[in-house]
Amino acid sequence: MADVQDSLCRAFEQVDGVGRFSVEPWERPGGGGGVTRILRSRGHVEKAAVNRSAVWGETPPRLSEVQASASRHFYATGVSIIVHPRNPHAPTFHANLRYFETDTGAAWFGGGADLTPVYLYREDAVAFHRALAEICGRHPIGDYPTWKRRCDEYFFLPHRGEARGVGGIFFDHLDDLEAAWRFVEDLGRNLGSVYLPILTRRLGTAYGDQERIWQQRRRGRYVEFNLIWDRGTRFGLETGGRTESILASLPPHARWDTDEDPPPGSPERELVDLLRGDPVDWSSVSI
Amino acid sequence: MADVQDSLCRAFEQVDGVGRFSVEPWERPGGGGGVTRILRSRGHVEKAAVNRSAVWGETPPRLSEVQASASRHFYATGVSIIVHPRNPHAPTFHANLRYFETDTGAAWFGGGADLTPVYLYREDAVAFHRALAEICGRHPIGDYPTWKRRCDEYFFLPHRGEARGVGGIFFDHLDDLEAAWRFVEDLGRNLGSVYLPILTRRLGTAYGDQERIWQQRRRGRYVEFNLIWDRGTRFGLETGGRTESILASLPPHARWDTDEDPPPGSPERELVDLLRGDPVDWSSVSI
Repeated sequence: MADVQDSLCRAFEQVDGVGRFSVEPWERPGGGGGVTRILRSRGHVEKAAVNRSAVWGETPPRLSEVQASASRHFYATGVSIIVHPRNPHAPTFHANLRYFETDTGAAWFGGGADLTPVYLYREDAVAFHRALAEICGRHPIGDYPTWKRRCDEYFFLPHRGEARGVGGIFFDHLDDLEAAWRFVEDLGRNLGSVYLPILTRRLGTAYGDQERIWQQRRRGRYVEFNLIWDRGTRFGLETGGRTESILASLPPHARWDTDEDPPPGSPERELVDLLRGDPVDWSSVSI
Repeated sequence: MADVQDSLCRAFEQVDGVGRFSVEPWERPGGGGGVTRILRSRGHVEKAAVNRSAVWGETPPRLSEVQASASRHFYATGVSIIVHPRNPHAPTFHANLRYFETDTGAAWFGGGADLTPVYLYREDAVAFHRALAEICGRHPIGDYPTWKRRCDEYFFLPHRGEARGVGGIFFDHLDDLEAAWRFVEDLGRNLGSVYLPILTRRLGTAYGDQERIWQQRRRGRYVEFNLIWDRGTRFGLETGGRTESILASLPPHARWDTDEDPPPGSPERELVDLLRGDPVDWSSVSI
């Protein structure tokens, strides 16, 4: 996963134009460690994190519960990516690739990629989903329709009745390891080509204070999802993971205002209405 | 609890000098309802919420687990208060008073009050704790030392190794109802006199952008505590409570920066060192 981490950091630095990712190696007392790389910049990429880790050791009690497994030892490795662009017209991007095995012989791949717009550009959602569907389509185990649905189910805020964004794919427990590895490797190498065209074409769109305020309100929703509902975040925090790496996904700023609905006909309202409605089959939408 | 709500709202409006609390009555489909009152202002009180509710109905499955009770119906009423001042030298204040009963005959009071400074003023922590200790001391069931310790234990962020603030009191399961009601009523009537002197004496202290940034970083910690660890918040969200009322406690803004420790000798570092150390017996500190 190191090459995926390096190439994405280089790509995001190029788009940003100003900042450089930190390189923070860390070790886990119980076994293993990782490299956290964070970009905080005055450029186009306000905040990004590209983290990889490989950890092993005794299975934490909560993990055995979650996996309903009798394993005593585990090994887990993965890479996670988050990009919060400065321009409110450019969507936030998140992806994760992971591999897990236990001493009871179980082993599987999981992961996903999803997009969270602050302002809705339907052509971005379509491009994102089509690119993911195309990668899935190259692999016999690829199942875009199922993974798209799982993504919609997972990235949902029940307490707001809102989707986090326009979705993407979410897969887990792929235990045909050879086929799964070929797919995960292909996805990892192409994450840049899925997201970067969308990111770069929004960077020139003008915005002002009002759009930044709306962005920070939407980032409040992102914080809520990650801290309340995201299983990976909660699992990491509750099992004593490295806080700075786990919470690297949080946006640089967030705000909570009295939550009035945006006026009908506004672009802000268009987004909210979409997120509160049924999931859209973006890969089939004509634009 | 309605009089506690009204008098605190009036007092905070006076200190604020500009804004007015909203009045948002709501009903709970399963039984009961409440009145949420929120102030968002350009004055001294950047955001405050004073909420009361009285709800009843069938005991939600998660609630019976938590209370290890076989009850089928419950009744709960309470008031909760949060004040986020604009001036970073003025601490955030939180308090909660609640009563709970079940159809199996169990009934108890709970609650507490705690203070979260952005910059540490030892005399404020001392004044806060002495005022609470004095109220506790007026009542045979008052147990300031135990409730002070429980507050330190509860308002702690394990993933940061930091206390949320300088504590206060936290009590629960007071089932001598007559004595408990006298104490809770006394506490509720005096919450203003505990906090307002501390709030008002910090409002004239000068501050600039750096202090506001530090305030927003500390508010990030407040968001983390409330969304990850606070039992009331999680219980409310997971059982379908009114989201806008539950999350009214969130600060108006928060930020997450790369988390470098403030330089030694700075006031920011003084706060962090204090929060990471053993709890202080504030009521006995000489100032």
